[in-house]
Amino acid sequence: MSDQFSAQDYQFMQRALDLAAKGVYTTTPNPAVGCVLVKHGEIVGEGFHFKAGQPHAERVALAQAGENAKGATAYVTLEPCSHYGRTPPCALGLIEAGVGKVIAAMQDPNPQVAGKGLQMIAEAGIESAVNLLKDSAEKLNKGFLKRMRKGTPLIQLKLAMSLDGRTAMASGESKWITGAASRADVQKMRAKSSALLSTSATVLADNPSLNVRWEDFPDDLKKEYVKERVRQPVRVILDSQHRIRPSHKLFETDAPVWLVSSEARDLTNFPDFCEQIILPKENLLSELMVELGKRQINSLWIEAGKNLAGSLIEQKWVDELILYIAPKLLGEKAHALCSLPHLTQLADAPLWQLDEMQQIGDDIKLIYTPKGS
Amino acid sequence: MSDQFSAQDYQFMQRALDLAAKGVYTTTPNPAVGCVLVKHGEIVGEGFHFKAGQPHAERVALAQAGENAKGATAYVTLEPCSHYGRTPPCALGLIEAGVGKVIAAMQDPNPQVAGKGLQMIAEAGIESAVNLLKDSAEKLNKGFLKRMRKGTPLIQLKLAMSLDGRTAMASGESKWITGAASRADVQKMRAKSSALLSTSATVLADNPSLNVRWEDFPDDLKKEYVKERVRQPVRVILDSQHRIRPSHKLFETDAPVWLVSSEARDLTNFPDFCEQIILPKENLLSELMVELGKRQINSLWIEAGKNLAGSLIEQKWVDELILYIAPKLLGEKAHALCSLPHLTQLADAPLWQLDEMQQIGDDIKLIYTPKGS
Repeated sequence: MSDQFSAQDYQFMQRALDLAAKGVYTTTPNPAVGCVLVKHGEIVGEGFHFKAGQPHAERVALAQAGENAKGATAYVTLEPCSHYGRTPPCALGLIEAGVGKVIAAMQDPNPQVAGKGLQMIAEAGIESAVNLLKDSAEKLNKGFLKRMRKGTPLIQLKLAMSLDGRTAMASGESKWITGAASRADVQKMRAKSSALLSTSATVLADNPSLNVRWEDFPDDLKKEYVKERVRQPVRVILDSQHRIRPSHKLFETDAPVWLVSSEARDLTNFPDFCEQIILPKENLLSELMVELGKRQINSLWIEAGKNLAGSLIEQKWVDELILYIAPKLLGEKAHALCSLPHLTQLADAPLWQLDEMQQIGDDIKLIYTPKGS
Repeated sequence: MSDQFSAQDYQFMQRALDLAAKGVYTTTPNPAVGCVLVKHGEIVGEGFHFKAGQPHAERVALAQAGENAKGATAYVTLEPCSHYGRTPPCALGLIEAGVGKVIAAMQDPNPQVAGKGLQMIAEAGIESAVNLLKDSAEKLNKGFLKRMRKGTPLIQLKLAMSLDGRTAMASGESKWITGAASRADVQKMRAKSSALLSTSATVLADNPSLNVRWEDFPDDLKKEYVKERVRQPVRVILDSQHRIRPSHKLFETDAPVWLVSSEARDLTNFPDFCEQIILPKENLLSELMVELGKRQINSLWIEAGKNLAGSLIEQKWVDELILYIAPKLLGEKAHALCSLPHLTQLADAPLWQLDEMQQIGDDIKLIYTPKGS
């Protein structure tokens, strides 16, 4: 605990973080942000950002506080914005409301903000502080923050496998290796993602919807995230040979599908929500990640077979390896987890670091990040 | 907590279990047993069985208590024996010492005992009770108990692998997939085992010592189990084609090596501690497990490649699947974990149940038991 902050400061910022977390399924491309206004030790207003185009967290809290905002301390999970976007700058809103102090969990790395929000506040003669529960605030918006810092989305590679690293029987049978609890968790993870990435090979093999199905959510999420508000992630499909057809199940969900290849195709018979992204063949994955960054994709959830998985791993694109492991052994004839054609020596195998380990139904879920990242 | 037992009873039996645990590395083929003698709420004598041929736990505790044993309550982790073995029956010892009550954590399933010890005590007019902390007592001697009940050893299959279920590079390179902490844990697990099982294929490929190396123990075990007392498990090697040579490293450790095949070989040039076990080719693994049971092997720790692992799994011999998983991905060209030639449908894959999950250095260790066992 830093000397700069009191136990009360921690408590109210934690409340602001809890509020912010309510937005994680919907705010993309914006960050999830929470705000709490406190006067004489009492919360006089609080709120969170729900989705782009709707009020920012600070505005919700200020509206709730009304006159009580004057002299209050504002706890915000991300530096208040300083630029005119779809809404006027929140830093200005806090100044105009006459708050007495602003504490931000972290600076906003968005180049349009990046310290300017706190500077505006300081220049208005209002006390400010930053970096309270910063790690939690970073975790909450890791996708948005990666895009702001690197220009590319957070890349989460999901792999569902047996204990011996197999993803399907020799026949291709793969329904279901993992259990219902894992699959419900996958729905939750998809729901948090800005976009999902797969390949035409997977679409042709399994004809998946690659959508978010509220019915399949874990029970706790159903309560928290009502069906009417469900946001569908963008479906991004690598389809170099133009094998995707309008009849594929993908198109039964009314949400963007972006078909990626190196040559233009005729999309006449495809629904309006289907677009194409044309990129040079060389370094296609890198080009794609940059393009998705430009299209404001904060986080990319990847479900694919051994080839795409292997390429992403070899090219070091994976920020999080998310493994769902079923308590089964499928043997050496079954499908492999990933193809790593360039790896021949043990010493060259990149190391990963365990971030999370949990039992989930009969399965386990492991999250690894690249070691040293 | 059962009504039959007081909080104090639990506490003293736990102490007896803790004492018993000191014997787990050395008592084979005997069970690990602890005994605590309590009089007026005070421990007046306690002990554990260290190794076969040395006094049983009850005798150690009685010797320590001397005259104080009279009227004391004896807490024993396993029913006192009733037969004359290398030592006279402990039930008799307790009776002769005049104890007032005997509480056993569990009955001894050894057909030579099986209730007769407690019966002797009851017939002598001494109060007795059984099944206090029975689950812990079962766990402590799971190998001995399996042998007594089924006639075969507890079978623990150890597999060290990458996250994608690979045990070596395509070149055969496998040193080291898992880290030093996992390898130290393997030393601990080997030290607890009555015997280790491997194959001539593994010996020819890696020329392992398959012994217990005190230097490689985890630090906590070094304190608990001094070097001078280290017991080497029997090394059992499947060698149908008589490919093991006296020059293999196995023979540098002065401890039994049992070579298993279906035809007799000449052992002239092998050390005295090397024997052969000749078994019919058909159902060789089953024949071997029965033979090892007859030879009083309580627990068998298996380190081998995909073929033996697969056969043991397919034939449902594995009681515990012990996985050490390194945070690496090795790709589809690397060696597979297990060969399961008869498995073609997902629904036929036997299910396992997670028993333990822990981080161990940079690796994770998972223990699974067959589901429904």
